[in-house]
Amino acid sequence: MNSPLTIGVFDSGFGGLTVLRALLPLIPGARYLYLGDTARLPYGSKSRETIARYALSSGRFLLEQGAEHLVVACNTATALALEDLKADLPIPVTGVIAPGAAAAQAVGAAGHVLVLATTATVQSGAYTRALEARGLAATEKACPLLVPLVEEGWLEATPETIAVTAEVLRIYLAEAMAEAPQATSLLLGCTHYPLLKPLIEETLRRLDYPLRLIDSADATAQAVAGQIGTRAAVGVATSTAFYATDSIEKFQRLGSRFLGQVLPPVSLIDLGG
Amino acid sequence: MNSPLTIGVFDSGFGGLTVLRALLPLIPGARYLYLGDTARLPYGSKSRETIARYALSSGRFLLEQGAEHLVVACNTATALALEDLKADLPIPVTGVIAPGAAAAQAVGAAGHVLVLATTATVQSGAYTRALEARGLAATEKACPLLVPLVEEGWLEATPETIAVTAEVLRIYLAEAMAEAPQATSLLLGCTHYPLLKPLIEETLRRLDYPLRLIDSADATAQAVAGQIGTRAAVGVATSTAFYATDSIEKFQRLGSRFLGQVLPPVSLIDLGG
Repeated sequence: MNSPLTIGVFDSGFGGLTVLRALLPLIPGARYLYLGDTARLPYGSKSRETIARYALSSGRFLLEQGAEHLVVACNTATALALEDLKADLPIPVTGVIAPGAAAAQAVGAAGHVLVLATTATVQSGAYTRALEARGLAATEKACPLLVPLVEEGWLEATPETIAVTAEVLRIYLAEAMAEAPQATSLLLGCTHYPLLKPLIEETLRRLDYPLRLIDSADATAQAVAGQIGTRAAVGVATSTAFYATDSIEKFQRLGSRFLGQVLPPVSLIDLGG
Repeated sequence: MNSPLTIGVFDSGFGGLTVLRALLPLIPGARYLYLGDTARLPYGSKSRETIARYALSSGRFLLEQGAEHLVVACNTATALALEDLKADLPIPVTGVIAPGAAAAQAVGAAGHVLVLATTATVQSGAYTRALEARGLAATEKACPLLVPLVEEGWLEATPETIAVTAEVLRIYLAEAMAEAPQATSLLLGCTHYPLLKPLIEETLRRLDYPLRLIDSADATAQAVAGQIGTRAAVGVATSTAFYATDSIEKFQRLGSRFLGQVLPPVSLIDLGG
């Protein structure tokens, strides 16, 4: 096969780069188009109607650029707009929630899953529905301060800022533990959260709250690979293109942290929002 | 005079309600229209072009509703879009920055002013220009985590969450103190920050950093009253109407905290963004 498969990956910002990071080694030789709708970020505090409108314009943009498969690498957009996207676009669309729920089922049959996510994702109840459909019980916990802390780099700036992020995590996890002491696994229901993994693991140890971590970024990449196979011809180089609707400079600076490698130049686009 | 003056007040969200709160007792008998552009919040992390586009559509909406004077109750929109708004709208437009700078000049001649604001406001340099034009030196400090902390209610929820907000403030103020030990006054350059006043005063005492606090919400209300007078007829009741572009429920819940009184029903409008 000569023409590489084009995979569109879309998020409200940089978080979805953790999904792209997981996709790159799994499906080599593909042409990846990543769109961060940074002008309208964050989605997590907005309503269903607004999020669906934003998601559709982002999905259509990637389709116009040649995407043959769309990955919604944003939990909020998946929770609130996946069905709209599937109805609107003539290409397969994969969200992050079903793969995350399937991964939770794979690690612990009949367990109780604690889900950390944004306010909008929690309010949608999408994870609870997806987990219950697989015979798992769920408790969802909204953690609205984690995205700003990650975006401001308070994970690594100084010992003092790391201590603040750790304390915010401890407060959220202690509240969750009071609500769901029976939980056996912890699903990271926001693509920003994989960057917090080491701090989450440490906090769980300190709280003596032994949960198994499930990363929906990894699970989503596995699901996409399962759906489309590794179609790339051997020897074809992977290519990537990055688009953002605002703040190219911030995207470039923060994006590298999420992707785990230096980002090539990012193109600014206008979705008219 | 029989017909009350209509004053439009606009912010990216709830923060501008602190300006409305200061206006209500100063200019009684007016008809106030408040618009929170909550669908596109926060402005503080977006680019100049995007903010100007958002501000223009908000200003035009209030003009269409009958506003005879526009108050830009948002530091970021004032910093990045005040000139665009003045050029575009056929009514007087008052921002929050010039009044804040004038208030700083009034309290301390020839002093050095520390300004706390969002990233976009700081990057614009608007406060530094306005203060230098009045013979004052300025140091601006971006405090991007304060808005999410205030919006999540971590000012009052529990002693633990208040401690987090206090620690974030301490980190920002200690960094500012290292940069500008000579500062004599502190200007709150974001309309969310007046809610943090007691905590800021306590933190300044703990750091032994004796700064005089200047609240640009109060200063702006004074400036508007100075410009238009208290035109209302005696005995005419003040009226208020509230519009938001998203999350009516959140606006209603948080807005009361900012306004200092229970909000009447909020109307959802679509600015097409």
